[in-house]
Amino acid sequence: MALFNFLPKEEQYFTLFTRMTSHVYDAARALAVMLADKSGVYTEHIERIKVIEHACDEVTHTVVTRLNKSFITPFDREDIYMLSGALDDIVDLIDDAARAMVMYDLHESTKYAIQFADVLQRMAVHLHEVVSMLERPAGIMPRLVEIHRLENEGDDVYHAAIAELFRHTSDPLTVIKWKDIYEKLESAVDRCEAVANIIESIIIKNS
Amino acid sequence: MALFNFLPKEEQYFTLFTRMTSHVYDAARALAVMLADKSGVYTEHIERIKVIEHACDEVTHTVVTRLNKSFITPFDREDIYMLSGALDDIVDLIDDAARAMVMYDLHESTKYAIQFADVLQRMAVHLHEVVSMLERPAGIMPRLVEIHRLENEGDDVYHAAIAELFRHTSDPLTVIKWKDIYEKLESAVDRCEAVANIIESIIIKNS
Amino acid sequence: MALFNFLPKEEQYFTLFTRMTSHVYDAARALAVMLADKSGVYTEHIERIKVIEHACDEVTHTVVTRLNKSFITPFDREDIYMLSGALDDIVDLIDDAARAMVMYDLHESTKYAIQFADVLQRMAVHLHEVVSMLERPAGIMPRLVEIHRLENEGDDVYHAAIAELFRHTSDPLTVIKWKDIYEKLESAVDRCEAVANIIESIIIKNS
Repeated sequence: MALFNFLPKEEQYFTLFTRMTSHVYDAARALAVMLADKSGVYTEHIERIKVIEHACDEVTHTVVTRLNKSFITPFDREDIYMLSGALDDIVDLIDDAARAMVMYDLHESTKYAIQFADVLQRMAVHLHEVVSMLERPAGIMPRLVEIHRLENEGDDVYHAAIAELFRHTSDPLTVIKWKDIYEKLESAVDRCEAVANIIESIIIKNS
Repeated sequence: MALFNFLPKEEQYFTLFTRMTSHVYDAARALAVMLADKSGVYTEHIERIKVIEHACDEVTHTVVTRLNKSFITPFDREDIYMLSGALDDIVDLIDDAARAMVMYDLHESTKYAIQFADVLQRMAVHLHEVVSMLERPAGIMPRLVEIHRLENEGDDVYHAAIAELFRHTSDPLTVIKWKDIYEKLESAVDRCEAVANIIESIIIKNS
Repeated sequence: MALFNFLPKEEQYFTLFTRMTSHVYDAARALAVMLADKSGVYTEHIERIKVIEHACDEVTHTVVTRLNKSFITPFDREDIYMLSGALDDIVDLIDDAARAMVMYDLHESTKYAIQFADVLQRMAVHLHEVVSMLERPAGIMPRLVEIHRLENEGDDVYHAAIAELFRHTSDPLTVIKWKDIYEKLESAVDRCEAVANIIESIIIKNS
């Protein structure tokens, strides 16, 4: 089953989407590398992530501009719009979490932040494959299921992280800082799941 | 005035919506029962709410799948999508608030949390009636007005709860915990009002 | 180039939008005046902002009602809906931030809150002009660019405000209070940028 072949070449949004999922993967990977950096000096990592975030922004802008200039049925437009928006959100949230480390003057990661970055990286791999399969979605479902499973894993990380934070941290300011970072990372995981849901919708509608 | 009679039987989304509002009511009620439990052991309550949340998730999924497979005008689709999404959000937020009690190792409610659960239960009753009336919306308006009034009541609870929290709690970690729970409950109240707004839109469009 | 002239008089949404951007400006200005009030008594300022917020709510309601009763192409509807929603959000968030000052029993501003109110006022001026130009959008682009620049300025204010808050405030409760207010103000700035993005979409689609 080949969906979307009716689209002319200049509207191959799917190339743009795989570029976005590459950026999602790069951002998740850069975050993991940053959190593993024992030096605690994050400036270069932050800059690398910001470059990825800008690149992803530009693809999103290209998608939206192309969408506005093309003739497509309204509902598909909405899916394309939501998909690019959700992918862009993931990168924004990873960037927010990374910048929060610096804003809060933190120079050491926690095992939970590292677990979050790991979950995000694995989700990004699946998102990239799933988006690459959009034109021929046979066999896409097990990967969507795996993304939902990873969201549950991220949810467990979040609950464990917050519970430990409140149980074993005496300094309230440290609690506030990490609570904020964990919430950003959990939102990034949620947006990955949102992408899976949007993709499932697209497939059902076009099957 | 009977709206929506043009819909074929298999697209009777309204049965699905009343199932969702039943879940909203059950979740709000289970939260109230949990908060009234003086034992401070919330495990079973949390599990009950999680079961409701899963059931509601499944109805949402059914709505979205059915929507994607049906031919309906785009704008109505959007309303149906928004309505099921907003109802699902309410249950998610009630579940989040309940689970936060356990995540934060809290074993006693506050009068404000109990007031929130009461407001949510009353909103759920009206939401259920309003959704049941969607096919024949004569007399629906006063109920929508009552939902807006209850949202104001929830807003007053929120402001009183936060003000008291900061005035009379010496432990900052306790402040952080309850602030988070009150925000989740206030968001649930806001989403109830969002449902009322979506329903008003649907009625105006179809009158 | 004159867009939208095909709309009948009763559908001149653009008059409604300029009324909304006037409310955005008034709210931002009232916030600036409130924060500059050395008396630390904010009751009247809060009431003034609440009046503006109600007035803006009513225009939003008029837009949505009119939209639901009019025949327009689905996609334009969506833009109109999103535009009025985003403008309404800005005023809501300014109102939330102002009310939070009272809810948290704060009687003195910070230089960062004042900078935020200043950025919001300047954004509101551009939003008002941009919306006024929607029917004849020649020369609109530099103003949209300026709105994006102001969003960056707001982002810098946010990061500086949070960093200083955590570095120089010993009382955790004060940190929690101001963090919340800064987040609301930053969200208001973000929603101003969202309006610029929606307007850019509308222009591209109709050019």
